[in-house]
Amino acid sequence: MVEVILSINAGSSSVKISVYKSPETPKGNPIPLAECSIDGLTAPPAKLKYERGDEKIKGKEIEGIGSQDDAFQFILDHLTKDEGLPELARKEDIHFTCHRVVHGGDYPRSQVIDEETYHHIQELSDLAPLHNAPALSIVSTSSRILPHAINIAYFDSSFHSTIPPYISTYPIDPTVAKRNKLRKYGFHGISYAFIARSVAEHLSKPLDSLNIIALHLGSGASACCIKNGKSWDTSMGLTPLAGLPGATRSGSIDPSLMFHFTHSAGKPSHSSGTNMHITEAEEILNKKSGWKALTGTTDFGAISSSDKEQDRLAFDIFVDRILNYVGPYFTKLDGEVDALVFAGGIGEKGAKLRKAVVNGVKCLGFKGDDGKNEAPGDKIVVDITGEGARFKTLVCKTDEQCEMAREWLRISTGW
Amino acid sequence: MVEVILSINAGSSSVKISVYKSPETPKGNPIPLAECSIDGLTAPPAKLKYERGDEKIKGKEIEGIGSQDDAFQFILDHLTKDEGLPELARKEDIHFTCHRVVHGGDYPRSQVIDEETYHHIQELSDLAPLHNAPALSIVSTSSRILPHAINIAYFDSSFHSTIPPYISTYPIDPTVAKRNKLRKYGFHGISYAFIARSVAEHLSKPLDSLNIIALHLGSGASACCIKNGKSWDTSMGLTPLAGLPGATRSGSIDPSLMFHFTHSAGKPSHSSGTNMHITEAEEILNKKSGWKALTGTTDFGAISSSDKEQDRLAFDIFVDRILNYVGPYFTKLDGEVDALVFAGGIGEKGAKLRKAVVNGVKCLGFKGDDGKNEAPGDKIVVDITGEGARFKTLVCKTDEQCEMAREWLRISTGW
Repeated sequence: MVEVILSINAGSSSVKISVYKSPETPKGNPIPLAECSIDGLTAPPAKLKYERGDEKIKGKEIEGIGSQDDAFQFILDHLTKDEGLPELARKEDIHFTCHRVVHGGDYPRSQVIDEETYHHIQELSDLAPLHNAPALSIVSTSSRILPHAINIAYFDSSFHSTIPPYISTYPIDPTVAKRNKLRKYGFHGISYAFIARSVAEHLSKPLDSLNIIALHLGSGASACCIKNGKSWDTSMGLTPLAGLPGATRSGSIDPSLMFHFTHSAGKPSHSSGTNMHITEAEEILNKKSGWKALTGTTDFGAISSSDKEQDRLAFDIFVDRILNYVGPYFTKLDGEVDALVFAGGIGEKGAKLRKAVVNGVKCLGFKGDDGKNEAPGDKIVVDITGEGARFKTLVCKTDEQCEMAREWLRISTGW
Repeated sequence: MVEVILSINAGSSSVKISVYKSPETPKGNPIPLAECSIDGLTAPPAKLKYERGDEKIKGKEIEGIGSQDDAFQFILDHLTKDEGLPELARKEDIHFTCHRVVHGGDYPRSQVIDEETYHHIQELSDLAPLHNAPALSIVSTSSRILPHAINIAYFDSSFHSTIPPYISTYPIDPTVAKRNKLRKYGFHGISYAFIARSVAEHLSKPLDSLNIIALHLGSGASACCIKNGKSWDTSMGLTPLAGLPGATRSGSIDPSLMFHFTHSAGKPSHSSGTNMHITEAEEILNKKSGWKALTGTTDFGAISSSDKEQDRLAFDIFVDRILNYVGPYFTKLDGEVDALVFAGGIGEKGAKLRKAVVNGVKCLGFKGDDGKNEAPGDKIVVDITGEGARFKTLVCKTDEQCEMAREWLRISTGW
C-alpha cells in the first residue's frame, strides 16, 4: 500500500509542506510528490507556492490567510483538490504528518505525539516560545482534523543531545540551571542530520567516522562540529539566539548589553500573550537585530553584492563571526577534518560569502576552487575544493523535509 | 630629582599600590621601591600585605577598613611612616599617581585627570559601574589629599581601540548602539600592553611586527589576538562580562538566558545605589556565576588539583571556552603566530591548565615541554615550548602596575 507522508515546517511567517509517498523498495528514500508553501503571513497578502512535477504556481497572492493554522488548512485543501495528485485525494489518505519543532528540551529523538507528549512539548516551549509557537498550533490542528494520521514531532535540538556536559553546561548557579533547564541545546539539528548523512554518502565513509565542520547559514545561522557523525559542539545555545547573527537576530553579544540598550529589557514585549512570555530584550534581539538592523534588508544576497558601507560592514561581521567557530571546531576535531560544509540558503547561494570564509581559514589547509564555488550546480553535495587543499570544502543542499520523512521510514520500518 | 610614582590598582575587594622612583638613565624602567596591598574589603577583617626589599608583612589583619578609600588612606599612611622608605616620607613626595580604570569608553590612551576628564570618566562608567566604581572613589580622594600630585587614568579598554569596526560592532540597531555607546571595547589592556612589549623584547622582535595569541587568565579572564603589536580582537565586550568565564563571572552565555533564570532580570539589584545602576541580571552574572557557582570556591588552583566531579567539570569548561578563542585568533593571524602566551594568576601558576590548553591546539603546531611547563621559574617571560613545536608557547608574568609607571615615564619624558 502506498503511504502518504506530509513533512511540515512552520516558521514565524511561513508554512511549508512537502508530500512524499513511501518507496517501493525497503530502505528506499521517500518519493517526493509535491511541495506547497505559503509565506508572508506577517506581511499580507500571503503568497502561495506550489510544485508538482511540471505543474508550478509561484507567488500567487491569497486573501484571508493570517496564521500558520490558516495556511496549513489552505494547503491541505489545495493538495486534496489537485487532480494531478491522486495519492492524496482525501484527508484520510494522509498516514503520517512530520512536524518540525524547534525546541525539544531533553528529547534525544523524534516523538510520536499523543496527549502527554503534546503537553510536555507545550511546557518546554517556555524556553523558546518565539520558535515553538508556530509548529505547536499546527500540531494541535493536525490532531483534530487528521485524526487518522500519526503525528510525529522532530526536534531541531535532538541531534545535539550528544554534546558533552562540559560544552553544554553554562558556568552559572547549577541549582537554578537544573530547575529551569538552562543549558546549551543547539538547533538546526534536522538539517545537520541530513548534512551528516549526505556528506558521509558522498565521501563513501561510514557516518560514525565522519568529522565535519558544518555551517547552516540562512536567515537563522549556526555552526556545528560533527565528530564521528555526532554533534560535538554547536553555536546556538539555550535558544537559537546564541552564536551567529541572523537576518533579524543578534547572535551572541555581551550578556549585559540589553540592560544598556533599554531600561525595559526584562518587561514583557508586545508580542507576549497569555501563552507566550517574551521579554522586550528577547523580542529586540530575535526580531529587530541582525543584518536587517544594520542594513535595512533581510536579503543577504543583496547585501553581498552591494558596495554601500553598511552592507559591507554587515557582510564582514557575518564572515568574522562564522570564522569564530571554524577555528575552534577544527581544533576540537584535532585537525582530522573530512570537510568544511556550507548549507542553508546563504550557504548554498552565497558564493562570495563562501569564498571569504574559506579564505579566512586558508592557513588551516582549506582552499576553494573559484570556478566550482561560483557555480556549484544542482547536486545534493558538491565538492568545491581547490587544487592543493589539505581539506575538502563542500556545499550541501540541505533538506529538512526529506530528512523528517526519511527518518520516519527508517523508524517505522525498523531499519 | 627623584620622582615618586604610585601605581594604584583598585579591585572590587582590594587595593594594591606599587611605589616606583624614576630611573637615573633616560628610557630606563621605573625602579620599584615597595608594594603594599589590602584585600578582603568585602570579607572583613581586611588584610595588609607589604613588601620593601627584605621587609615583608603578610596577611596582617587590620580593623576598620571597609572601603577602597579607607584602604587607600591606610596604605598612604603606612608608606609615609616606613622609615626604610625615605623617598616617600611625606605625602608631598608623591609626584604622580597612576590609576587603573577598567572602562575608558572611547579614550585611546591614558589621560591626565582634571575636573573635565573626571566627569567624563564618571559618565562613561555607567557602562561598567561594577568595574569602574572602586577606582573612581580613589581618584576622587587622591585629587583631594594629594593636591600636588598629577593623577593619570589608565584604561583597560584603551589597548583595544585598534580593533577593526567589523569586529567591534554588534549586529544590533545602529542608532541605539551609537547613542548608548554599545560596542566591543575589551579589557585587560594594560596587561596586554605589558605582555606585548615584554614578549617582543624576549623574542628580539620589533613590537609592530609581533603576532601573538595572549591569554590573561585570572579570576577575570580574557583572550587577545595581537596583530603587529596591536589588539585585533579580544574576548571581552561592552563590559568585562563577555567572553571567558571567571571566578564569579559567567562569560558569554545565550543573551536570552537571564530572562529564563529569573523574572527580575531587569530590576535593580541590591548593590544599586544612587550612583550605580546595576540590574539583578548583571549582579548574578558578574558576582554569582563562574567557577565559584559551579564548585563553591574561587580558588582555581584548588579546583585544578581536585578529583571531585564538579571541579573537573569547572576545569574542563574553562579549558573548552579558552580553546574557543585560540583557534579563531590563530586564523585571524593567518597562522603567522610568534607565540601563544599565558599570563595572569592562573596563566602563570596553572601548569595543568596550560598543558590542557596547549594539548587542545596541538593540531595547529603547538607543543609544550612538560618539565618547563611544571616549573617555568621566575623570569618575566619564560619559554615552555616543547621539542618539534611549530610555534612557541610562553608564560609571561604580567605587571599592570609597572606598565602604568613605565608608560607615564615614556609619555612625560617624551620617548
